[in-house]
Amino acid sequence: MQRKFKAGILGATGAVGQKFIEVLTNHPWFEISVLAASERSAGKKYRDAVNWIGSKPIPTEVADLEVVEAKPGFDADVVFSGLDANVAEEIERDFAAAGYPVVSNARNYRMKDDVPLLIPEVNPDHTKLIERQSWGSSGYIVTNPNCSTVGLVTALRPLVDAFGVEVVQVVTMQALSGAGYPGVASLDALGNVVPYIGGEEEKMQTEPLKLLGKLEDGRVSPASIAISAHCNRVPVLEGHTEAVSVKLGQKVDAADVREVFKNYRSPIADLGLPSAPDPLFEIFDDQRFPQPRRHVELGNGMKVSIGRIRNCPVFDVKFVLLVHNTIRGAAGGAVLNAELLVKQGYLVHRETTVAVGA
Amino acid sequence: MQRKFKAGILGATGAVGQKFIEVLTNHPWFEISVLAASERSAGKKYRDAVNWIGSKPIPTEVADLEVVEAKPGFDADVVFSGLDANVAEEIERDFAAAGYPVVSNARNYRMKDDVPLLIPEVNPDHTKLIERQSWGSSGYIVTNPNCSTVGLVTALRPLVDAFGVEVVQVVTMQALSGAGYPGVASLDALGNVVPYIGGEEEKMQTEPLKLLGKLEDGRVSPASIAISAHCNRVPVLEGHTEAVSVKLGQKVDAADVREVFKNYRSPIADLGLPSAPDPLFEIFDDQRFPQPRRHVELGNGMKVSIGRIRNCPVFDVKFVLLVHNTIRGAAGGAVLNAELLVKQGYLVHRETTVAVGA
Amino acid sequence: MQRKFKAGILGATGAVGQKFIEVLTNHPWFEISVLAASERSAGKKYRDAVNWIGSKPIPTEVADLEVVEAKPGFDADVVFSGLDANVAEEIERDFAAAGYPVVSNARNYRMKDDVPLLIPEVNPDHTKLIERQSWGSSGYIVTNPNCSTVGLVTALRPLVDAFGVEVVQVVTMQALSGAGYPGVASLDALGNVVPYIGGEEEKMQTEPLKLLGKLEDGRVSPASIAISAHCNRVPVLEGHTEAVSVKLGQKVDAADVREVFKNYRSPIADLGLPSAPDPLFEIFDDQRFPQPRRHVELGNGMKVSIGRIRNCPVFDVKFVLLVHNTIRGAAGGAVLNAELLVKQGYLVHRETTVAVGA
Amino acid sequence: MQRKFKAGILGATGAVGQKFIEVLTNHPWFEISVLAASERSAGKKYRDAVNWIGSKPIPTEVADLEVVEAKPGFDADVVFSGLDANVAEEIERDFAAAGYPVVSNARNYRMKDDVPLLIPEVNPDHTKLIERQSWGSSGYIVTNPNCSTVGLVTALRPLVDAFGVEVVQVVTMQALSGAGYPGVASLDALGNVVPYIGGEEEKMQTEPLKLLGKLEDGRVSPASIAISAHCNRVPVLEGHTEAVSVKLGQKVDAADVREVFKNYRSPIADLGLPSAPDPLFEIFDDQRFPQPRRHVELGNGMKVSIGRIRNCPVFDVKFVLLVHNTIRGAAGGAVLNAELLVKQGYLVHRETTVAVGA
Repeated sequence: MQRKFKAGILGATGAVGQKFIEVLTNHPWFEISVLAASERSAGKKYRDAVNWIGSKPIPTEVADLEVVEAKPGFDADVVFSGLDANVAEEIERDFAAAGYPVVSNARNYRMKDDVPLLIPEVNPDHTKLIERQSWGSSGYIVTNPNCSTVGLVTALRPLVDAFGVEVVQVVTMQALSGAGYPGVASLDALGNVVPYIGGEEEKMQTEPLKLLGKLEDGRVSPASIAISAHCNRVPVLEGHTEAVSVKLGQKVDAADVREVFKNYRSPIADLGLPSAPDPLFEIFDDQRFPQPRRHVELGNGMKVSIGRIRNCPVFDVKFVLLVHNTIRGAAGGAVLNAELLVKQGYLVHRETTVAVGA
Repeated sequence: MQRKFKAGILGATGAVGQKFIEVLTNHPWFEISVLAASERSAGKKYRDAVNWIGSKPIPTEVADLEVVEAKPGFDADVVFSGLDANVAEEIERDFAAAGYPVVSNARNYRMKDDVPLLIPEVNPDHTKLIERQSWGSSGYIVTNPNCSTVGLVTALRPLVDAFGVEVVQVVTMQALSGAGYPGVASLDALGNVVPYIGGEEEKMQTEPLKLLGKLEDGRVSPASIAISAHCNRVPVLEGHTEAVSVKLGQKVDAADVREVFKNYRSPIADLGLPSAPDPLFEIFDDQRFPQPRRHVELGNGMKVSIGRIRNCPVFDVKFVLLVHNTIRGAAGGAVLNAELLVKQGYLVHRETTVAVGA
Repeated sequence: MQRKFKAGILGATGAVGQKFIEVLTNHPWFEISVLAASERSAGKKYRDAVNWIGSKPIPTEVADLEVVEAKPGFDADVVFSGLDANVAEEIERDFAAAGYPVVSNARNYRMKDDVPLLIPEVNPDHTKLIERQSWGSSGYIVTNPNCSTVGLVTALRPLVDAFGVEVVQVVTMQALSGAGYPGVASLDALGNVVPYIGGEEEKMQTEPLKLLGKLEDGRVSPASIAISAHCNRVPVLEGHTEAVSVKLGQKVDAADVREVFKNYRSPIADLGLPSAPDPLFEIFDDQRFPQPRRHVELGNGMKVSIGRIRNCPVFDVKFVLLVHNTIRGAAGGAVLNAELLVKQGYLVHRETTVAVGA
Repeated sequence: MQRKFKAGILGATGAVGQKFIEVLTNHPWFEISVLAASERSAGKKYRDAVNWIGSKPIPTEVADLEVVEAKPGFDADVVFSGLDANVAEEIERDFAAAGYPVVSNARNYRMKDDVPLLIPEVNPDHTKLIERQSWGSSGYIVTNPNCSTVGLVTALRPLVDAFGVEVVQVVTMQALSGAGYPGVASLDALGNVVPYIGGEEEKMQTEPLKLLGKLEDGRVSPASIAISAHCNRVPVLEGHTEAVSVKLGQKVDAADVREVFKNYRSPIADLGLPSAPDPLFEIFDDQRFPQPRRHVELGNGMKVSIGRIRNCPVFDVKFVLLVHNTIRGAAGGAVLNAELLVKQGYLVHRETTVAVGA
């Protein structure tokens, strides 16, 4: 790949926007061309507009970029959206209508019929839904799921394929970073568990059905799985831990499930996507693992770690998984989506198109 | 009650022993007469023998008591055992054989056929098992369950009575204090989740069956409930939070379950036991609650807090509960057991007996 | 004391207001008569207006009180102000002008010439400044210092008396609760130190000079001590820890300083004020102490804990102190101020006055 | 540099040994040839012998290495010692006597007259002391200072050079990782400050005098600075924060001090040592910084971050610094020492010597 794709970031000063910058810096296929945010930030240097919360410094490449307003018109082959849900609907629509591929982390269009809700390792064929979108332009929208859904569904995929999945009980212990900044008050976080995250359980109970659904006649028919989720906030910085119990379509043993995870090759395993971890899963036999502090960064935050695979006295099998909520569960997942779009030919250098259109 | 019962504490310098001291100080029915610990501590003043970990100071009444070795012979109407499992078996047996009532928090005798595994609000009639014990003396052993079992079973009791319970999925988020001192290393605890606690899931999957079992012909026939537990350690000081999903014997709604909890009167509600909270449950309608930092001390740490009662897409109902693991789940629970034994006539002033025996 | 004084609380829904409620509930001299807050809360039941952050439940006595607006006119013998600094100036003035004694935790009037900045154990005679206030009524304002100042100055008082104090270097490690709610974002708090608290160092460098100043001819002439402060936020819920180095007026040894602390009797030690701890200081010889988690509640949060008293290679002596920032350093300190005002005759039953005035 | 130096690690399974592995993996000049630990670990694969505590996985290059006993005889051009102080004295002496350069993080030989206590940016000429060592071989020992000393002295160096330094008051807020594993119990760490770290204050008050001393006639004459330290443990994973107040040899302003830090070029700045950060200092003007969570990884953990440079009402200037305690303050600092030794010709390929000796 000779020439990099120009990437604009919408909501660049927010928590997700900052992660997009981290993930896209030094990316082999993309380069950040535009940082867009609200009117209030527009015109400032990025370093002055942002309250940078990460533990790595602002990349020097972007620190002095001037922030622009989040309106179509700037030079980008793709825009990554880290916008808040309360503004994403309108702005993303505007960009799609203006011909931009929009790769979004916002929840607004996730469940829309013709918008792919995408995890490349899970449902790479769902990108075909793009062709049904009609924004009056060559633009389109692709979304990634909620951060806690990502870990769960990625782990379910091989089980669905090998045995079928009928019922899922999942209890999450989610990191503070998932709430953005300032997010959770420290008096609610320190030494505490908050057993509620607004809207989270609903997402975990519905998004997986679309993700694991079959594309038939250009439409996704949702999977038929009963899912129940309890979502909790715990005092962890990065990394959602999930305790999962699964009723499978066949009577199998924990050892069989372990084998399936261990040997799993995802449908995109051989595409050479730069952000795709290989192998996809890190499997632990040490009962104490995975743990967010120790393992959240595996595969540059793109792996799904799985441990404690054992028989379940109620269903068939239970296990623990860990997913990096702001990398794999947000910015990194979106960038992997864009990589797949490049590989599939949906994401191209835009100026060509423009030239043709002119 | 005119004269207080003399209470000896076994394992008085350990984490549970310290909690026994906290709970028994200023108790209306008991007074601490003896602090017993290992040979290493014997002969020292308690204040010098103990590494006191609590946030309240050592009660002045006991600070200067001389620690004695944990051997029968001292003056006590009852002994409370906070011994480690690796020494509890032998020492508790010796005390029972020497004629002492032993009210133990250790796990060793919990599943023994003729030893009551007791939560007064759940199975007060199980104390009748005492009469089947034969230590060659008037002594006996009564145990309380594992700390995470206590919260679960207390909440299940009214559901079993009202609707029947068939299946339980429970995921715990347990406090650091449950591991004693020094317990969990801070590098494993801070900003982390450890998805494994040795032996805990087994206890949660078996102890409830005895606790909820029926006493028939002097024996407990275990309840028939399928239970699956995931146990996790989270960075919380005190208070186990548990996410519970339950399949009931009847099709009912979350609102019905809420009513049952709200109106519940336990079988000991009217006995006037000093440590029994009234009402037993604290029910929250605010979705953010219960939380360990805010609610663990309710009812002096003896209440079970329940919130987020809602329908479950997989089973019938799900909810969150919170239990104070070192009070209700350990020392406070044991003291409540002893209060019940007093009320039932199993625990009496021992010197009388001795006089008679002489 | 037969009849209790009626106490109004200004800013009752805020973090400090909540602590006032905790401290005044079951107080032997005061009873809460009015909860006042902003217009937005007025008219609601307190339980509905407040986001209660404490670990003890809302006292039942106040849960159903109707919140009123913070305007003079209600029935109270004294008002305690937990108002934010941005509204306190005007509202407190209005109450003083309307004849109420205002016992304030806000910073606005602390350094005003005729307003006592008061710690009863440190400068009880400064209340005489009240007589110089002229609000056109019998009302007046008395303030307590900043939370981190309180611990420092209380510890300095006996050293000033015994040896003289010339120079103080102090570095604080302050609790999150000092920032109120929502206060510090959890992403800034968890596993982190924030080496800056706006305005805090200035307060610690100036307030002690007024507190330790001499009342001469009805005015306070400030003490002459050079003070340098570094203020840091650490992930602790309650309790400011302070590392203090002091240059004394005489060459003495750490052992002498320990003796002075150990034997100290404050000027109010014999007045029988209900909130005054006795002794004032808790002195630790165990080098690991004091610690916020273990010792912040000593004396119901009103003691100042001191440990690690040792010689300083640069000045004369250094030590560590711990003070409960929202009790002794805020609401509890203010209530102790009011107790002193009662004892000195400045705080009386107001309706008498009103009757006379009518 | 064509051929890499073979590096042995003593105490390879310990907390510091693990950091040595992290820092030496992919090092351009060194390659790990031997992992040595106690008898108990010898013979096992490293992955089985170690309780790996880091957040990055065990490097694959070393995971399957067989651990050997920490005895001379193995093939290494240099040994890095992460041994505990209770065994380091004897083992390091044995290696030096057997002809190995020993680059140690242990405290045992730090204050020995002829052993360099070395920070390359501070006193690179002190390596000349090596020539006075006499172990009966070509071996020698070089040490790095205590982790909290490193940050302080690195920051003092330019101030000593520019203005002279007479008095230092320093209060540390130190990370949990400094205590190794299991180290601090979580019940002592979570939401707490421990105001004492055994031996730490003594080291901070003495080591800087040797580090900042002048090499004259082959000996170090200690600097003449009065230093007073308070050392505290706070709930932070990595990174010691230090609040420093300094009395300089000249009356200067905070702005002058800032300039000196900002423009500082260390004596090794141009040597091209791979681990040396450039610039050495990260200077913050945002008052909230530096913070351990955000900034500890700057310069791969080798920078010293400085902020809040301001005038001190007691001395001349005060500021806050942050140092990565297990990288710059331990393993990374030791490796930088070894790099300097290579550059200065003290560290060479050993087999040559062996060949000659054969």
